[in-house]
Amino acid sequence: MQRYFAKQKIDNQLILNEEDIYHIKTVMRMDEHDKIQVVYGTKVYLCCLENVNTNIQIMVEKELEVKENRMPKITLLIPLLKEQKMDLILQKATELGVNKIIPIETERSIIKRKEEKEDKKLERWKRICKEASEQSYRIDIPEILPIQNPKNMKMLEGLSLICSTAETQRNIRFVLNSNTTCDRINIAIGPEGGFSPLEEKKWNELGFISVSLGNRIMRVETVPMYILSVLNFYYME
Amino acid sequence: MQRYFAKQKIDNQLILNEEDIYHIKTVMRMDEHDKIQVVYGTKVYLCCLENVNTNIQIMVEKELEVKENRMPKITLLIPLLKEQKMDLILQKATELGVNKIIPIETERSIIKRKEEKEDKKLERWKRICKEASEQSYRIDIPEILPIQNPKNMKMLEGLSLICSTAETQRNIRFVLNSNTTCDRINIAIGPEGGFSPLEEKKWNELGFISVSLGNRIMRVETVPMYILSVLNFYYME
Repeated sequence: MQRYFAKQKIDNQLILNEEDIYHIKTVMRMDEHDKIQVVYGTKVYLCCLENVNTNIQIMVEKELEVKENRMPKITLLIPLLKEQKMDLILQKATELGVNKIIPIETERSIIKRKEEKEDKKLERWKRICKEASEQSYRIDIPEILPIQNPKNMKMLEGLSLICSTAETQRNIRFVLNSNTTCDRINIAIGPEGGFSPLEEKKWNELGFISVSLGNRIMRVETVPMYILSVLNFYYME
Repeated sequence: MQRYFAKQKIDNQLILNEEDIYHIKTVMRMDEHDKIQVVYGTKVYLCCLENVNTNIQIMVEKELEVKENRMPKITLLIPLLKEQKMDLILQKATELGVNKIIPIETERSIIKRKEEKEDKKLERWKRICKEASEQSYRIDIPEILPIQNPKNMKMLEGLSLICSTAETQRNIRFVLNSNTTCDRINIAIGPEGGFSPLEEKKWNELGFISVSLGNRIMRVETVPMYILSVLNFYYME
């Protein structure tokens, strides 16, 4: 069943944005009395479509049970990458439960900031995360912050890790086993070629612990999927 | 440094195939005495290029140390998917250390077998795995078998798992913790919509244990990456 995020709830009726209405009517070609799931706030409703061909109404039939997830809140800090790789990361990270994404400037990134295009980019990234949230039946959409420069960042709350190619002793399993009670994990991922030693030092000063992900040589876009898969597994009940 | 797989070793000289020679000379535009890494058998050599502009020779300078990996040998059984998804799986699974891939026919797959095109497909899949092996500095290339129909398959050696959406109790962590000594793991992944109950029963009869991967709803192409990430993490030293 198709799932959408509502922007408003008025009594027994949920209000979707225009794109979603277009999706229901024109892309999915849904009929009168077809059912959809709609998320509003932290709740999920089974809804019935009425007046599909005139002024469509989305009426709540009942509230659905939501399974709680005990994984810590995950923030990924990711470098600027080519569009295709960025899109893949956003889609897969959303599927695998990321909560917040902070795009970061890095020395060795081949993509440079173009401030005049940033609003449009952010808009696009948000849309990808919304769609992936709907498809993977999430009840929330990951938050994406505007691009940050680590020079201007402050320490983040929770356990902060930086994926390091220099670190050979301290691996991610050891660090997770040593921090079993954290409820928030922040992970910084470098671009192709990794963080420079100076950058890594800067992150360390911001409280990010350097960790190794093991011996495999992964492409940048594989790293977020690896980390989130590992965290889902580690916190599986 | 670029890595290639050799097809032959004659004394102190390694022989690459024509595509790789083209890559060295035309794509990478390497020069006289540039260095590359070449894998032959289970060994990795640091090599020097000679006579690049005439009859290129790849001369061994020294043997490099290879880090052993203690992860069990992993076989993935994957459904037939659209080309783009298949390519992504092959690339990422290779990066993350898969040893063997068996494409399988499944009831609900939207891609049907076209026997006349299978040789060409297999050829393409092998090429993707070879390139991904080079890029991720592997010393071996995953083996890809021709498409199999589970009706004609026999039991496989090792621990065999099937990713099930019906199974709610037995999850992958429990199963790994209960089978700590296996040196070979086979994992069957269903298409969009999953395996049918009848198919799952058939796999169970072939010795495949139904396991849940947790509560997340993942796209098919995400599942192999999730599983291989988890196994890399689980067997990390």
